[in-house]
Amino acid sequence: MPTTPPRFAPRGDHDAIELGTGLAPKFDTGGLIVAVATDAVTGEVLMVAHMNEEALARTIASREAWFFSRSRQKLWRKGEESGNTLAVREMRVDCDQDVILLRVAMAGDAVACHQGYRSCFYRTVPLGAEPTPDLTLGLDAAMPRVTRHGH
Amino acid sequence: MPTTPPRFAPRGDHDAIELGTGLAPKFDTGGLIVAVATDAVTGEVLMVAHMNEEALARTIASREAWFFSRSRQKLWRKGEESGNTLAVREMRVDCDQDVILLRVAMAGDAVACHQGYRSCFYRTVPLGAEPTPDLTLGLDAAMPRVTRHGH
Repeated sequence: MPTTPPRFAPRGDHDAIELGTGLAPKFDTGGLIVAVATDAVTGEVLMVAHMNEEALARTIASREAWFFSRSRQKLWRKGEESGNTLAVREMRVDCDQDVILLRVAMAGDAVACHQGYRSCFYRTVPLGAEPTPDLTLGLDAAMPRVTRHGH
Repeated sequence: MPTTPPRFAPRGDHDAIELGTGLAPKFDTGGLIVAVATDAVTGEVLMVAHMNEEALARTIASREAWFFSRSRQKLWRKGEESGNTLAVREMRVDCDQDVILLRVAMAGDAVACHQGYRSCFYRTVPLGAEPTPDLTLGLDAAMPRVTRHGH
């Protein structure tokens, strides 16, 4: 069986991971890393998904956002069905290298959420009291919903 | 043993979770949910951490960011040692309710990262070529590092 050459730096010690210049992503026990996609212009958080090693490598090489769907257990190019692809303008990694941050430009309908909203975060949680099952989420009225949509 | 009353809505069906007004957070098998903290003014992503049910409930009630540390396996009020607390101005939840978004105001040194940077995302990943172990991360020169710091 041919071996795949390593794509990333070894994890190394604490300082190497947090202050070094090698990309040594920490994939979880399922082989995934959290990826946060934000709008490159406004900074708005659009969606949070997961990448496996292949999705991360493809995103770096192609500048198009690839993820790994946990529910469908498959590699997935964002917008491959809906046309709402994400062009990656910048990628960052956090201190312990277990989160990837993308600054993206949205194509198509400029809708990142499969529910038709620009961002998946279209509901607010009321604050200031102990939560109970009766707590009522607010809907962000400033975020229009596009009817033709999809992942 | 006394039972704790439920704090959140039951998960319900797909439409209830994604389009309903009940907060029905999806905790993973370890009892955790991903939480993304952004600057309430600039929108900049500051850090990504995890909350358990208790951390989420305390954050909702107190408007101060609480997390659960996976490495230390304990509940943790952000800034309890460093003074760099996060006052939560707004909380949002995503479509399938497995990610919490916080818009926060930073106290203390306005440093969210234990490495002394405002944001944990102080390094950029070069794009446009297949990643190799020799890939060199860039340091965001515009993000100053504060020497007195801590979680």
